[in-house]
Amino acid sequence: MTAVNRQIRLARRPAGEVRAEDWGHGSEAVAVPGDGQFLGRTRYVSLDPAMRGWLDDRPSYLPPVGLGEVMRAGSVVEVVASNHPGFTVGDHVVGAFGVQEYALSDGKGAITVDPALAPLSTYLGALGMPGTTAYFGLLEVGALKEGETVLVSGAAGAVGTMVGQIAKVKGCRVIGIAGGPEKCALLTGELGFDAAIDYRSEDVRKALRAHAPDGVDVYFDNVGGPILDAALTALALHARVVVCGAISQYNNESAVQGPSNYLALLVRRARMEGFVVFDYARRYAEAAAEIAGWIGDGRITVKEQVVEGTVDDFPETFQMLFRGENTGKLVLRLT
Amino acid sequence: MTAVNRQIRLARRPAGEVRAEDWGHGSEAVAVPGDGQFLGRTRYVSLDPAMRGWLDDRPSYLPPVGLGEVMRAGSVVEVVASNHPGFTVGDHVVGAFGVQEYALSDGKGAITVDPALAPLSTYLGALGMPGTTAYFGLLEVGALKEGETVLVSGAAGAVGTMVGQIAKVKGCRVIGIAGGPEKCALLTGELGFDAAIDYRSEDVRKALRAHAPDGVDVYFDNVGGPILDAALTALALHARVVVCGAISQYNNESAVQGPSNYLALLVRRARMEGFVVFDYARRYAEAAAEIAGWIGDGRITVKEQVVEGTVDDFPETFQMLFRGENTGKLVLRLT
Repeated sequence: MTAVNRQIRLARRPAGEVRAEDWGHGSEAVAVPGDGQFLGRTRYVSLDPAMRGWLDDRPSYLPPVGLGEVMRAGSVVEVVASNHPGFTVGDHVVGAFGVQEYALSDGKGAITVDPALAPLSTYLGALGMPGTTAYFGLLEVGALKEGETVLVSGAAGAVGTMVGQIAKVKGCRVIGIAGGPEKCALLTGELGFDAAIDYRSEDVRKALRAHAPDGVDVYFDNVGGPILDAALTALALHARVVVCGAISQYNNESAVQGPSNYLALLVRRARMEGFVVFDYARRYAEAAAEIAGWIGDGRITVKEQVVEGTVDDFPETFQMLFRGENTGKLVLRLT
Repeated sequence: MTAVNRQIRLARRPAGEVRAEDWGHGSEAVAVPGDGQFLGRTRYVSLDPAMRGWLDDRPSYLPPVGLGEVMRAGSVVEVVASNHPGFTVGDHVVGAFGVQEYALSDGKGAITVDPALAPLSTYLGALGMPGTTAYFGLLEVGALKEGETVLVSGAAGAVGTMVGQIAKVKGCRVIGIAGGPEKCALLTGELGFDAAIDYRSEDVRKALRAHAPDGVDVYFDNVGGPILDAALTALALHARVVVCGAISQYNNESAVQGPSNYLALLVRRARMEGFVVFDYARRYAEAAAEIAGWIGDGRITVKEQVVEGTVDDFPETFQMLFRGENTGKLVLRLT
């Protein structure tokens, strides 16, 4: 146990886009697990747009990452030492272990996963937070019903690919909004969406009128900004807008762009509702089991983008999320 | 029947604030009711902020008032001639009869009311659209529960005075936002609100932190704009924002100000929902009966501001709504 644990810490609160100098690269001696603890070696680090919000010093659903603290991140670790009765050396465990090569844990919030059932990275994606976010957001918050029309933005991302495919499983018509022809081709091709709108080259409002002439019943919003405003012009009566995120606004240095068309909620008797997937923690297993079944049946295709590297590659990999450079779930595999 | 029917018609679509020249003052011969029709003489004309929206040529929950048409308005008329089996000379009837001295009706949407049970004007206010708007918005859309904290903006208006008082009847803590010390004194005095915030002289966010330290469970929004944004900073977990109107935005010549703080819906797992009271038409009688009971018990005080005049006074009276000059329900009594 004389190994070194390299870590990424928050060095400075970013203003707008996160810069290389906002991160600290450090190392410390690998810790020895005490009573009731285990030590895990990180195999996969999750990269999620929501992490950007954790860097700001403002009240949210989680406290901000403190200055100097190891960056919070979901990850899959392999247990390499254990004084915890529930975790054995060789176990693979998912949890919020942070961007570091080794993590000490008391087991709280840690879930053992089986690499024989699914690739480890999938437990950070389709079977992890993005998958359950799509599942509960669409089915519980969105109260989706068979035959409805679903619109999802950030459709080629970790959550969006799952939203669209779950909606198809549920017998809905699905329209995805994504950036660029390759992502749009993926949506309507491999992922089985009914239509895709390329927001970089198309007039989204006009495209929505064409693809959803009778309106959108559930709009699952991952992006906010002008696309949210466009979607609000296309709501069906009694529509539900699921507020999952607003990636277009996370790097704003000025105020968030509020949805100017929010009075469509009144005209269309619609609702806009936010949620945080952590509230469904007690039902993660139920959702993951159902999603795993759909993957097994071939009804859902898992899309992942795996970057290989070290924790020092985290900052640059993180920026891919905000440049639209990833398709599906973005993970960093520590090699 | 050689009398003249003076009318206010829409002469021009207003840009921003409605100007005198946007209205046409005209007259025509009083019509004779045909088979299945009655003729009513207007006693009270309702003035409502929502009327501003009806003047714009854009899709909404009702078609816009056409250029040259008699201005749409709720009113109370007295039947002066009838060839309709359901309406007798002398009856008092509420309906969308328009801003005119006489109205011909086939009885559709017309409701006979009893001047012995309540003053006629009350059927346009506490027992009419504003009262039922408050009732269904708060209890159905807001899903209000006993013991919750309710915030209402435009609190001294026709809807706001009813929202706050109904919430008190339901055992809630009530905070009202209004403009000026007189209105605020009315709220916490005669109307029994627990607290009032004068948005003209107070920092609304700061006042909300003081008056609702544990957050607001239901925010009933009549105004939009900066007050909606302030309210979003004060939501309790699982809060409901009822979108009833946005009077601060109706005269905008540029885009509506979207709520920059809408991501509070996510952080607080809250929802924002719009509604149109017309959807509850089949339950108006139920709501009015319950409200009448509360008025009879002295638990609800009816606030009305009656302007006496002719239909030619409609344009100037209408502007009072947007200048914050009325307290309670604003009606024009034709003398």
